[in-house]
Amino acid sequence: MQSEMTEEEIDLLDYNYDLPGSLPGTLNIPDDAAPTELVLISYDAKHSVQKTLHQPDECLPYLEQKMVCWLDVRGLGTEDVLRQVGGIFNLHPLLLEDVVNVPHRPKLDLYDDQLLMIVHMVRPSKRGHGFIAEQVGFILQHNVLLTMQEESLWDCFDPVRDRLKRNLGMLRQRGAGYLTYTLLDTLVDGYFPVLEQYGEYIEDLEDEVVMRPTRQTLQKIHELRRELLMLRRYIWPQRTVINSLIRDGSDFLTQENRIYLQDVYDHIIQILDILETYREVSSSLMDVYLSSVSNRMNDVMKLLTVISTIFIPLTFIAGVYGMNFNPAASPLNMPELNWYWGYPLCLGVMATIALSLFTFFWRQGWFANFSAPPPESDR
Amino acid sequence: MQSEMTEEEIDLLDYNYDLPGSLPGTLNIPDDAAPTELVLISYDAKHSVQKTLHQPDECLPYLEQKMVCWLDVRGLGTEDVLRQVGGIFNLHPLLLEDVVNVPHRPKLDLYDDQLLMIVHMVRPSKRGHGFIAEQVGFILQHNVLLTMQEESLWDCFDPVRDRLKRNLGMLRQRGAGYLTYTLLDTLVDGYFPVLEQYGEYIEDLEDEVVMRPTRQTLQKIHELRRELLMLRRYIWPQRTVINSLIRDGSDFLTQENRIYLQDVYDHIIQILDILETYREVSSSLMDVYLSSVSNRMNDVMKLLTVISTIFIPLTFIAGVYGMNFNPAASPLNMPELNWYWGYPLCLGVMATIALSLFTFFWRQGWFANFSAPPPESDR
Amino acid sequence: MQSEMTEEEIDLLDYNYDLPGSLPGTLNIPDDAAPTELVLISYDAKHSVQKTLHQPDECLPYLEQKMVCWLDVRGLGTEDVLRQVGGIFNLHPLLLEDVVNVPHRPKLDLYDDQLLMIVHMVRPSKRGHGFIAEQVGFILQHNVLLTMQEESLWDCFDPVRDRLKRNLGMLRQRGAGYLTYTLLDTLVDGYFPVLEQYGEYIEDLEDEVVMRPTRQTLQKIHELRRELLMLRRYIWPQRTVINSLIRDGSDFLTQENRIYLQDVYDHIIQILDILETYREVSSSLMDVYLSSVSNRMNDVMKLLTVISTIFIPLTFIAGVYGMNFNPAASPLNMPELNWYWGYPLCLGVMATIALSLFTFFWRQGWFANFSAPPPESDR
Amino acid sequence: MQSEMTEEEIDLLDYNYDLPGSLPGTLNIPDDAAPTELVLISYDAKHSVQKTLHQPDECLPYLEQKMVCWLDVRGLGTEDVLRQVGGIFNLHPLLLEDVVNVPHRPKLDLYDDQLLMIVHMVRPSKRGHGFIAEQVGFILQHNVLLTMQEESLWDCFDPVRDRLKRNLGMLRQRGAGYLTYTLLDTLVDGYFPVLEQYGEYIEDLEDEVVMRPTRQTLQKIHELRRELLMLRRYIWPQRTVINSLIRDGSDFLTQENRIYLQDVYDHIIQILDILETYREVSSSLMDVYLSSVSNRMNDVMKLLTVISTIFIPLTFIAGVYGMNFNPAASPLNMPELNWYWGYPLCLGVMATIALSLFTFFWRQGWFANFSAPPPESDR
Amino acid sequence: MQSEMTEEEIDLLDYNYDLPGSLPGTLNIPDDAAPTELVLISYDAKHSVQKTLHQPDECLPYLEQKMVCWLDVRGLGTEDVLRQVGGIFNLHPLLLEDVVNVPHRPKLDLYDDQLLMIVHMVRPSKRGHGFIAEQVGFILQHNVLLTMQEESLWDCFDPVRDRLKRNLGMLRQRGAGYLTYTLLDTLVDGYFPVLEQYGEYIEDLEDEVVMRPTRQTLQKIHELRRELLMLRRYIWPQRTVINSLIRDGSDFLTQENRIYLQDVYDHIIQILDILETYREVSSSLMDVYLSSVSNRMNDVMKLLTVISTIFIPLTFIAGVYGMNFNPAASPLNMPELNWYWGYPLCLGVMATIALSLFTFFWRQGWFANFSAPPPESDR
Repeated sequence: MQSEMTEEEIDLLDYNYDLPGSLPGTLNIPDDAAPTELVLISYDAKHSVQKTLHQPDECLPYLEQKMVCWLDVRGLGTEDVLRQVGGIFNLHPLLLEDVVNVPHRPKLDLYDDQLLMIVHMVRPSKRGHGFIAEQVGFILQHNVLLTMQEESLWDCFDPVRDRLKRNLGMLRQRGAGYLTYTLLDTLVDGYFPVLEQYGEYIEDLEDEVVMRPTRQTLQKIHELRRELLMLRRYIWPQRTVINSLIRDGSDFLTQENRIYLQDVYDHIIQILDILETYREVSSSLMDVYLSSVSNRMNDVMKLLTVISTIFIPLTFIAGVYGMNFNPAASPLNMPELNWYWGYPLCLGVMATIALSLFTFFWRQGWFANFSAPPPESDR
Repeated sequence: MQSEMTEEEIDLLDYNYDLPGSLPGTLNIPDDAAPTELVLISYDAKHSVQKTLHQPDECLPYLEQKMVCWLDVRGLGTEDVLRQVGGIFNLHPLLLEDVVNVPHRPKLDLYDDQLLMIVHMVRPSKRGHGFIAEQVGFILQHNVLLTMQEESLWDCFDPVRDRLKRNLGMLRQRGAGYLTYTLLDTLVDGYFPVLEQYGEYIEDLEDEVVMRPTRQTLQKIHELRRELLMLRRYIWPQRTVINSLIRDGSDFLTQENRIYLQDVYDHIIQILDILETYREVSSSLMDVYLSSVSNRMNDVMKLLTVISTIFIPLTFIAGVYGMNFNPAASPLNMPELNWYWGYPLCLGVMATIALSLFTFFWRQGWFANFSAPPPESDR
Repeated sequence: MQSEMTEEEIDLLDYNYDLPGSLPGTLNIPDDAAPTELVLISYDAKHSVQKTLHQPDECLPYLEQKMVCWLDVRGLGTEDVLRQVGGIFNLHPLLLEDVVNVPHRPKLDLYDDQLLMIVHMVRPSKRGHGFIAEQVGFILQHNVLLTMQEESLWDCFDPVRDRLKRNLGMLRQRGAGYLTYTLLDTLVDGYFPVLEQYGEYIEDLEDEVVMRPTRQTLQKIHELRRELLMLRRYIWPQRTVINSLIRDGSDFLTQENRIYLQDVYDHIIQILDILETYREVSSSLMDVYLSSVSNRMNDVMKLLTVISTIFIPLTFIAGVYGMNFNPAASPLNMPELNWYWGYPLCLGVMATIALSLFTFFWRQGWFANFSAPPPESDR
Repeated sequence: MQSEMTEEEIDLLDYNYDLPGSLPGTLNIPDDAAPTELVLISYDAKHSVQKTLHQPDECLPYLEQKMVCWLDVRGLGTEDVLRQVGGIFNLHPLLLEDVVNVPHRPKLDLYDDQLLMIVHMVRPSKRGHGFIAEQVGFILQHNVLLTMQEESLWDCFDPVRDRLKRNLGMLRQRGAGYLTYTLLDTLVDGYFPVLEQYGEYIEDLEDEVVMRPTRQTLQKIHELRRELLMLRRYIWPQRTVINSLIRDGSDFLTQENRIYLQDVYDHIIQILDILETYREVSSSLMDVYLSSVSNRMNDVMKLLTVISTIFIPLTFIAGVYGMNFNPAASPLNMPELNWYWGYPLCLGVMATIALSLFTFFWRQGWFANFSAPPPESDR
Repeated sequence: MQSEMTEEEIDLLDYNYDLPGSLPGTLNIPDDAAPTELVLISYDAKHSVQKTLHQPDECLPYLEQKMVCWLDVRGLGTEDVLRQVGGIFNLHPLLLEDVVNVPHRPKLDLYDDQLLMIVHMVRPSKRGHGFIAEQVGFILQHNVLLTMQEESLWDCFDPVRDRLKRNLGMLRQRGAGYLTYTLLDTLVDGYFPVLEQYGEYIEDLEDEVVMRPTRQTLQKIHELRRELLMLRRYIWPQRTVINSLIRDGSDFLTQENRIYLQDVYDHIIQILDILETYREVSSSLMDVYLSSVSNRMNDVMKLLTVISTIFIPLTFIAGVYGMNFNPAASPLNMPELNWYWGYPLCLGVMATIALSLFTFFWRQGWFANFSAPPPESDR
């Protein structure tokens, strides 16, 4: 998934799929995929080497050492390099296909000698809400971790690289399993800033929807619900993935690493909790919007009714005394027109009617709402 | 299901059923069913034969060879031929009934020496959304695969036939189980173009519902929800079918074929994920539509209110000075009529009132929405 | 349940219940219950006897033979006869109560030497939608089947009686278990015509709700949702009943009969699938109705607004020149009245305003909807 | 729960709770609780004694006999007596607290030598809908049953007492387990009259909501939904209670009693079925109400629009000929005023316009709804 | 969570999270966290000591005694003290992180020699609804209980401290497990006052929404739904926590303590029951609100329609007789103007029309609603 595209809008059908009838193992590489880069980090408690590789086979000497080896494949655009990596690490063609044809639903496959895990990292979009997702494939073998990232420009693993380089925490003392945990932990924690941004966005929308609902508000709520659905689609299967890893991953992870993973699992549950709350709140927001629009319409109707109800009877009275019945033809024909107090009396009756109706509406509380929203916030 | 019919609309009750009390094993063949054609493909790693059969028993010599044999029965309109096929392959009458009386809910039945599977393939409809479904029955025996398709004109298996003919991939090296996997994979991948078309259709509807909601939009949303329900009814039971096949199909499929089938299962889960998202988005669309219509009505009301509120008081004033009270009868009777500045003053008062009200509405932001949607897009 | 009553409307509380504190085993027989008739069919592969009994004990000789015996008790109105039947077949008082106090929720009870099953058959109502349900109790002992039907006039078992009489299919060759399957199969297939009628009814409603929604439409949708709820309440527990029978009924049914029953179970699943679709579509219909009514109101408002907005300013202008300011009192007082072109100019200004507003509304697309629905279909 | 209070309205928070930090086993006895009465019934197949006790320890001689003993504690207002009863029957303080601090959620606790069950009985309220609930605690020991009822004035057990006294059915032949079943059966059957009353109430509401929706209707629907929620909260956990009793209660109930209990369980399932239907119907009613109100508004709008649309153009024409352009100043100034046929022509034009518009609205079907609801039913 | 903040509004994203890539075990201590205080209570059946500690290691002598020891850490603001406590009690860094980085989702972790439990206590907010939550971490070792509270000013444990001091109940006779139960019981009972306050608030809202719905009502309902969601998020996982503790906590709690815990579990189920009812009622309230607003609009529309429909025809008649057709030019031109009874007749016709229309509306029941709500309650 390209960041430029998703910056705009998140695609509803957000899985890569093969053309019906294509051969199993076909790699679908889009034209604008980032060219593949290879970065190798090899470390033990005492040493740490970081090296950018030009050819996949440059990593072979490192794989034979006792040091932990992390080969980070960034960008899935160069088929040739990807196939070489597949060959070196002895990857099943279907497995390589799953990792390269992004995005794929998060999954965990356990083989005899290796473990494949597909997860997604996210970062907040710069629009004030929304997110950009990127797939990461983890392939873990004895003391070698291979990660395959969709994009080359950005990932959330820099703090881990920094900890490896500066030997912070226990990371360098542990094996590839602990590195896997550390990367997963970092990746899952990366969902929280996205959620925090959404939290603020929802609170803004809550104000907007009651105080000044516009057509854009409606679109925003719909878009929000849609984005939360998509975000849930990324994180929900990761729950199963991590859970399976804790339960069944004993061939690849020590007991202690799995205790650490329990912490990652707790975080995913928290993220799902929060997402569920967001979804229910945004559903409620749609109801509030509809009620709000009805309320507005009510106000408009009230204004029209007040004006009409006050002036229509007055206009009728004016109309009556505008009739041309001939007072000369009969003493019954509009004698009021010739009364001494005729005109003031007529105006007085009109004023009385207007005042009575106005008082009636005032006491019914119809004017309460007009003053409530200040004009400047109502535009 | 006839393609002509479904091109129009998808039937809500979309299962074939027996007349109550009919004998078990009765074949219900509609008058417009396609006549049955038989195509046999027999292959091993070295040879591949494709032959159209005139009589079912022409396939007997091929069944006795060691080559893999795929008999493709297209069109379920000739009862005689279907019964002969049932006899040759020793099919239980209920089993033949399930395969012939289309459409039947997807199911998997495992017998001692054969496996029956009913699934549905879909292709996008040409209307821009919707789909056309066709049932396929798979009957797998040792190295013989029998497929029974509802229609003769179209299926999604051409790429597989091509791979058999041109010996692409590993297909010719493997047995009937791998052929079954390949066909299922192709069939399931065929759901994605339908989903992609729906994805675009939903995005069109999302624009339409906010920018220019009409009565047709309402109908489209309802129809969309209904079609997604129907599509889900096809794909949901296939999930169970494939899952059972992986779990219980060891008598018919090798371990490796079942690993490949896991990939098909993953695709079905992805399809269900996407369908669920579509359904929730289309539910939200209905809410958006209702809100949108309310918004429109609000705009209409505002226009009426602005016009009425400005002109009703003015008309009243004009009415007052249209009264015929006789200035001659009393100095109190409408002396304004004889003032030097009477008429200009009256017009001035009217203009002041009109301007004040206009300004009031302007500052309340009531005119904001009228200019928002451009006229040409609003029709 | 009386057919006359249900022809009108289906009762929401649709279960028979005892008066609190009544003795276990009390038979509640309503006054209008049909008098009990007894029909015995006894058959083996070679012979078949059908006989109407006057007294329950007339069946005793047949029970002792090796032939399969089907005693069909129709109408549950004669307590005396029912108790005698209970005595002959050794039925537990609670069991007899469940069968006689109709309607009872579908259930399956397995005893050592007999099996009790309560199910419901339905037939389409003549109103164009709706259904009439009737309870049937099955009591299966070794080679004797006792059925107890709520009504005497109608049931759906005639095709089975016909097959018994004319020795069609394998029915006469098999035992009482296969007869039970055949009756259940016929009974379950009887739901499809009801569903088909509903399918057509829903499609009619779908047209009505968008094209010409009336108050009756609303009532129809509500009634439809209610009837589907009731239908689901009948069929849902039958799913469990048939499933238990397949799983646990090995003492009463052969392996082969249970394979046949699997087919009945598949049909029930299909019925539930269809019902679920119907329910979701009818829920969506309510939303469509509400939107449709709003759309209508919008059209009405638009018409009012167009008329008001065009004429109110014109009427105001006419009002102005109806004022009686005295042109003689001042040259500023309404000099227009004495202009040579005064009146034509005034009319011209009015026409210009009317045309401008009309054009404005036209370009906003406000007239689009008035012409859309043809008058004859809109009533 | 006091009957006076619930006669008014059912409390949303309807569970008794301890003040945070109160000692376990504290009895919360409200001031208006009914004073405790003790009624003992002791029976075997031949004898039956009923006696009102003044002191709890008067029951001791009966407990030592071989007869079945039922001590019915009515009213939970006298702490002293309750504690004595607790002492005699050796009740755990928490158990006594659960029984006395009403209402408590239905529950079943199985101890080594006794069984505690909390259930609720209901009776219909006299308002035409609603119900009054009362908690009953059952404590079953070998051949002794202790029941503790919330109120002293009413319970639903009189038929059982009558059967004990008059030796009806098998009740006196059986033990305390069968007595427990009989009481539970009576209690559960007591839900049906409440449901029946609700069924009629819902049908009344269905008519009201379409024919003459008022503000009270809205309140009634909301109240109905709330009451059904509360009723479900009582009966739902009883399902689990009875189920556990059947499954795990073999130390206290014979196999046969548990078969009888299965019948009680079936009734609870039926009650839940009915409640679920009621809830869905009442949800649908809210939608119908909203649509109905919209329909009414539509009618009002139509009337306004018809009147306005017909008269506004006419009034405009009258206004034009009320203008004072001076025919003497110019031959172009309103020559119509002096035409011979001027006035009749003008009236004719007006009549033509009015008739055309009226016909237009008639053909659009706008008058259809005004005549539909008869005036007398619409108030 | 700070009480000042939550007094305002409850945050949607209500979990503490690490910055992505932070080291495991990092303590996030906000600037305004309360400084840490340490209170130690040590007791056995005969003695009881309460002491405020200045340094964590002052508790060491007490830990070595046979008395039960409860160290209550209040306020999580002093990192140094917290790390020392972690050291003394040998807490895993991740465990300390979970307890200190509040709020964390409720959880239970069982280790070999200690048990970690995170729960939340709540108290009612002073605004009339809402609640303030505070996290408590329980760490239970043999006869030592360590609690870590988020805030120092308030907790709900004072009754327990009082019972310890005054030797009430059996608390001092039992071990740390029973103390844990007592604290949990107190904490869970603390949810009831919050629920009771919500119950009253909902009942107020129910009146408000039907009688006098305003824009604030809408906001209140939305806020209520949101707060109930948040409250449910606190209590739901505690259900799992207590259940696991009962099932798996046998290393830390005696059989009897687990029976007591069952009582706490029952209370949590009751709380969830009530919450679920509240949520459904508040969902229904939103529907009622929307219907109520529609009802109001209907009333406004009716008033407008009544006034318009009565006066528009009258004004038209007045307009007709205000026309200036010249009676002198033709005997057909408005002869009525010169009739003797012209003006009275005209007024009479007007009065007749007005009365007829008024009677029509009266009989349609249109005025019923205007008198219903008293003016003073409608503001």
